[in-house]
Amino acid sequence: MFEEKLKEFEPIFYPKSIAVIGASATSIKVGSLWVVDLRSAGFPGLIYPVGSSGGRIGDLEILPSLRLIPGEVDYVIVAVPRQSALELLDDCAAKNVKAVHFFTAGFSETDTQQGRKLEEQMLEKARQGNVRIIGPNCIGVYCPEHRIPLLMGILGEDGSVGFISQSGGIATKLVTIGIARHINYSKGVSFGNGIDLDASDFLQYLAADPKTRVIGAYLEGTRDGACLFNTMKEVAKAKPLVVWKGGRTEAGAQAALSHTGSLTSSAAIWSAMLKQAGTIEVHSLEELTDTLLIFQQLGRGRGIRAAIIGGLADGGGGNSVAAGDACMENGLKIPPLSFETKQELSKLVGEVGGILCNPVDLSQAQFRGLATLFQAIDSVVRDTVSDVVLIQEDIEILLPIYSRKGLEEINEFFIELAKRQNKPVIVVLPPGSVEAERLQIEQKLLAASIPVFCSMERAARAIYRLNQYYCWQEAK
Amino acid sequence: MFEEKLKEFEPIFYPKSIAVIGASATSIKVGSLWVVDLRSAGFPGLIYPVGSSGGRIGDLEILPSLRLIPGEVDYVIVAVPRQSALELLDDCAAKNVKAVHFFTAGFSETDTQQGRKLEEQMLEKARQGNVRIIGPNCIGVYCPEHRIPLLMGILGEDGSVGFISQSGGIATKLVTIGIARHINYSKGVSFGNGIDLDASDFLQYLAADPKTRVIGAYLEGTRDGACLFNTMKEVAKAKPLVVWKGGRTEAGAQAALSHTGSLTSSAAIWSAMLKQAGTIEVHSLEELTDTLLIFQQLGRGRGIRAAIIGGLADGGGGNSVAAGDACMENGLKIPPLSFETKQELSKLVGEVGGILCNPVDLSQAQFRGLATLFQAIDSVVRDTVSDVVLIQEDIEILLPIYSRKGLEEINEFFIELAKRQNKPVIVVLPPGSVEAERLQIEQKLLAASIPVFCSMERAARAIYRLNQYYCWQEAK
Repeated sequence: MFEEKLKEFEPIFYPKSIAVIGASATSIKVGSLWVVDLRSAGFPGLIYPVGSSGGRIGDLEILPSLRLIPGEVDYVIVAVPRQSALELLDDCAAKNVKAVHFFTAGFSETDTQQGRKLEEQMLEKARQGNVRIIGPNCIGVYCPEHRIPLLMGILGEDGSVGFISQSGGIATKLVTIGIARHINYSKGVSFGNGIDLDASDFLQYLAADPKTRVIGAYLEGTRDGACLFNTMKEVAKAKPLVVWKGGRTEAGAQAALSHTGSLTSSAAIWSAMLKQAGTIEVHSLEELTDTLLIFQQLGRGRGIRAAIIGGLADGGGGNSVAAGDACMENGLKIPPLSFETKQELSKLVGEVGGILCNPVDLSQAQFRGLATLFQAIDSVVRDTVSDVVLIQEDIEILLPIYSRKGLEEINEFFIELAKRQNKPVIVVLPPGSVEAERLQIEQKLLAASIPVFCSMERAARAIYRLNQYYCWQEAK
Repeated sequence: MFEEKLKEFEPIFYPKSIAVIGASATSIKVGSLWVVDLRSAGFPGLIYPVGSSGGRIGDLEILPSLRLIPGEVDYVIVAVPRQSALELLDDCAAKNVKAVHFFTAGFSETDTQQGRKLEEQMLEKARQGNVRIIGPNCIGVYCPEHRIPLLMGILGEDGSVGFISQSGGIATKLVTIGIARHINYSKGVSFGNGIDLDASDFLQYLAADPKTRVIGAYLEGTRDGACLFNTMKEVAKAKPLVVWKGGRTEAGAQAALSHTGSLTSSAAIWSAMLKQAGTIEVHSLEELTDTLLIFQQLGRGRGIRAAIIGGLADGGGGNSVAAGDACMENGLKIPPLSFETKQELSKLVGEVGGILCNPVDLSQAQFRGLATLFQAIDSVVRDTVSDVVLIQEDIEILLPIYSRKGLEEINEFFIELAKRQNKPVIVVLPPGSVEAERLQIEQKLLAASIPVFCSMERAARAIYRLNQYYCWQEAK
């Protein structure tokens, strides 16, 4: 599907050479940052800084014009004021550049006729010169495999999640949250006003890209709704496509107009469209990253019947009630445990002070040692009534009871359990008063491929969405 | 209202003497912990440890029986197995004890006839002996003013928020989150199965208590729905009453039955009842604490017209769109800024690269220094179109641009601004990759009475609920 896009976008995501317009040896300019960041990231191609200052950035000579670059240039990053945009596109055409990314802002997003007019002229020049435009008003391409970092040199690990985002700020957040939560991207792009290459183009490319297994999108508007709908429909058949539409409300839409010049349609129309196309709609950055994380880690849904384990050492009663509510209200099924499992639990932790149905409250295990706790958890995980297991781990309660060493044993057990069992084990680590320890444990679990969420609600919603997608796909 | 409750509950929240049944000099028992914790907290009354071991806990002699205590006993904490419950109630009656708190579990929550029968007998004995029961299966009273800590010695600052919770785990969470977020409690109680003193009794007391200005409740069920409804209706007339009902779903209700023996009615019936009574219904611990925080800090609602300021240094476009959506979807109004404010902003930060409507994106201020940023914020806050100001502060972005010193100046400005302006200023600090700095700033702002939330959604929902309550109250 869309195989032709792979070749077409090769100079964008895997350029052999990049020119940066707006580099300077004498003052700190965004263009200079880009040159330095590409260098530091280990970009394997040629880098050509261009600017009027002359001089060098490191060992790279700053040339006064794109046209004076000796070799071929695949990709150009533009960080000079909008007044130079048209001339630059002439230069790009002359140099046979494949694609140009305009970091430059001040176009239709200013809601002026001048801004809109300039965009039209740019597009015309680009078509004539056979150059593709990314942006303007965006931070462009991210490709860890080809060592292209985001603005500010942000670079995470190479992975299987693709993203597109009209907003550079959201693109940056996706990558920084990705680094923190081990969501690893194959490639991503922030395309701002999207006057030429638009959401549809990049989605088609990511659908074709063999490295990309799931796609996340932050969109504010589109110039061609019908094309976007048809593209999404095709893409969602092949890969999970998670879409966050910004500008659903009057205030959001007003901001979107000023942000990327996007004229947004009604939220209801977008929602209907996204649903019909088979995409997964989310409503915030948290939901988007939660959903990408679960798709990345679980591959595909195994079902929505969840076993919930809480109160590993204490205080599990009310939390079990809350966890049951949170999971069911977010679409999961909480089946009763089998008679055998209940009997086993009753033998292990006793009848009083715990909850031996589902959600399970293992508070009483604190009086019987970790080995008993682990046996009890194992027994719940083995019970075939559930497709997935959610464990509520409250560090604030566990730390004083089991100390750091016990906590380490508990989390090592989770990691060993997740490896041993052919059933997803998901850990919920609610924030509290021992954040340093919590973040450390989160990193350890994530590194072992265990999905971690900070609330039962968010975990449940992500699991539900994962399964919803595969149900929809199978029903096709 | 309910003034008679003040005297009746004086021995519970302000006891002159407490006896702890189940203390031991030779083994670590919960009873002993209670004695030590009351002592460490500085409880100003007399403490009498009771247990069969003999010996001492610190300088306190452990007596073999409640009846052998030389002086009067107001309040008794029971941490011995259920088999002793009835005999203990005889002892309490003999000693003219006012109230007894059963930490002891193993009653109706085990869903056995034996458990239910024992509760009935306890209640009968209590009535005969003129003793009130708190629990069983709970962690009892919390009163910072009278230095009564929660189990494990947890003790926050004295304040104006009252709480009741059937769950001890949730009560503990309310207090630990309170300590972290500067939600300070006047008093609270966890009452478990609530066989005698129930939600209605404690709500009446908190309504009468002059120290308590807002009340939070976590409930799983009630033995007398009509009484609870009438009580809530009365209480909510006088003070904001925020209610989280656990066990709304089948799984939650099943857990609630095993947790506090609560038979829960349908979620829809509870919701309708809570609404009719004029309470504020919430659905999670996060929502409950968010709402208590905003009531504590803001006193009463000033309106729902919000000005949103974001992108203090960069990356504010997409975030502004998202913030606008989050606020409107959670009930706030986002009015356009006045013409004068827009002009001022345009002069201060320029037209390109920011958003000069509401939500405001001040990304471009990074090129003009902090003084300009502060002027721009000031101008938005002064604009009379808004009742409340929400500032999105993304430490992850600000730190590399302004360094630690700049960040400090920014937050000092917020504190000064909040003091100077007669308009609530609320800060949203989203979690990210610099958690240590973020938590430090959160503490600083909270200490200066600025409400802090970790997402725009949660802030908006809390503000909306605050105003909804006062609208309802005024419409009465």
